Amino acid sequence: MEIIERIKDMQAYSQDLRVEGKVISFVPTMGYLHEGHLSLMKEGRKRADVLVVSVFVNPTQFGPKEDLAKYPRDFDRDRSMMETVGVDVVFAPTVEEMYPDGYQTYVEVDEVTKNLCGMARAGHFRGVATVCAKLFHCVLPHIALFGRKDFQQLRVIERMVKDMNMDVGIIGMPIVREPDGMAMSSRNEYLNPKERKAALCLVKAITACRELFDNGERRVGALLDRAVGVVMNEETARIDYIRLAHTETLNDLVGVVWEKALLALAVYIGSTRLIDNTVLGEEFEKC
Amino acid sequence: MEIIERIKDMQAYSQDLRVEGKVISFVPTMGYLHEGHLSLMKEGRKRADVLVVSVFVNPTQFGPKEDLAKYPRDFDRDRSMMETVGVDVVFAPTVEEMYPDGYQTYVEVDEVTKNLCGMARAGHFRGVATVCAKLFHCVLPHIALFGRKDFQQLRVIERMVKDMNMDVGIIGMPIVREPDGMAMSSRNEYLNPKERKAALCLVKAITACRELFDNGERRVGALLDRAVGVVMNEETARIDYIRLAHTETLNDLVGVVWEKALLALAVYIGSTRLIDNTVLGEEFEKC
Repeated sequence: MEIIERIKDMQAYSQDLRVEGKVISFVPTMGYLHEGHLSLMKEGRKRADVLVVSVFVNPTQFGPKEDLAKYPRDFDRDRSMMETVGVDVVFAPTVEEMYPDGYQTYVEVDEVTKNLCGMARAGHFRGVATVCAKLFHCVLPHIALFGRKDFQQLRVIERMVKDMNMDVGIIGMPIVREPDGMAMSSRNEYLNPKERKAALCLVKAITACRELFDNGERRVGALLDRAVGVVMNEETARIDYIRLAHTETLNDLVGVVWEKALLALAVYIGSTRLIDNTVLGEEFEKC
Repeated sequence: MEIIERIKDMQAYSQDLRVEGKVISFVPTMGYLHEGHLSLMKEGRKRADVLVVSVFVNPTQFGPKEDLAKYPRDFDRDRSMMETVGVDVVFAPTVEEMYPDGYQTYVEVDEVTKNLCGMARAGHFRGVATVCAKLFHCVLPHIALFGRKDFQQLRVIERMVKDMNMDVGIIGMPIVREPDGMAMSSRNEYLNPKERKAALCLVKAITACRELFDNGERRVGALLDRAVGVVMNEETARIDYIRLAHTETLNDLVGVVWEKALLALAVYIGSTRLIDNTVLGEEFEKC
């Protein structure tokens, strides 16, 4: 497994592979890997000749009051995990390499960033789109894999790639959950045992809402009430948002769900903001 | 000379060339070509195996009150001119191909867009950066050539390419002038004979200012006064801006010129807005 820190070296490596006709798959991460990341890597491994993973905690996607400084980092642990799934190249640039003095260019995706996390985290998706555009230009992948836990992020990247005419196939992969249903996230690290238990209210809300949906309920209000009720039952939880949205535009649904709907939640447990989601009308991922 | 209208076809064409190890040069244009464009193509021809020129009047770089609808177009004339300089491929997508329904992604370059034309033309450089990013992803060039008449545009593209880690070499080429010194521009087409004569005040201002500089004047105020005086002497001219700016940051210079300075002008002649520039401290292009 090769570790590359310089952009020019990464580009040269990928350009050589492309001339040889090799297929490159790419998993961008912020490190502190878990089974969710590994599931992306395993799929990327299957679909390509060469699997590149980036490890870069991207400062431009954190707001000024967010958790950039304390975001968990453990490169040695990440490296061992990546070796087990057959990663060929780890691209791990420094912040200075990615955003040198005088840096001033950003990619903005307008509409699909407006609702959900875009409302609470100003500039977050601008940072996500920008770093992914940069990483795609560094790694030159044929395909890139993203988890559906960050559902809106997936839609933003799909939209950017389409609008910018980037020739990269974007693959969304199912949420990976702990045995108790909790969606895997590097930020789960922040939770103490009591909070970890309280955090189950997110997946409980999803399960309750799915059950209602499966029993035929299609009224947006009733479906949301069920999810909101479950979370409010957990006294340490504070709702940032719980919404039913169109699965493509991410606009709020009103009235009834006609076919499918994204149920998306962002909930604070103590000072930790957690997100989770499910698509009503599609199968639930196994825990 | 091949004409390609679809993005997918253009990408497939360029990807094949790249696998063959061919070097691609690219000149993006809005058509209605003149000798300035042809000078870029001739240079591109020299430097690469395959020369691609795009002809696309990009709506996103025009403001709502600007001249998009009346911008001059003559594809047959353009095609003949491109044949004379050995263009291999003309990429001529439709507006719908480039900006389909639901389009919502833009590239913003922050600082270098703030002064000069960025002040007068809100959103202009956002449109320029966006369309160039898209065109680079379609054409996949090794190098792209831009004229220095649009000096700020050149700086915006250089900055975008650097910040976005696009592996494209950007080459700025000298302004091409008519025998009387007028900078070539598709918009010169708008001028009636009387306006065409009045428009010479731009190059006259440049020449007068250069003369003063060559005689040792380094005070920003005195240099600007000379240029402004020449333009104000032309009664049909209305100044949008005349500025002395840093040649890299494009920030206004204050006090004295230490080494080099960009003298940049935007002047209305009747309803036509014309731009021109020179770098004091560098040689003047031949007419």
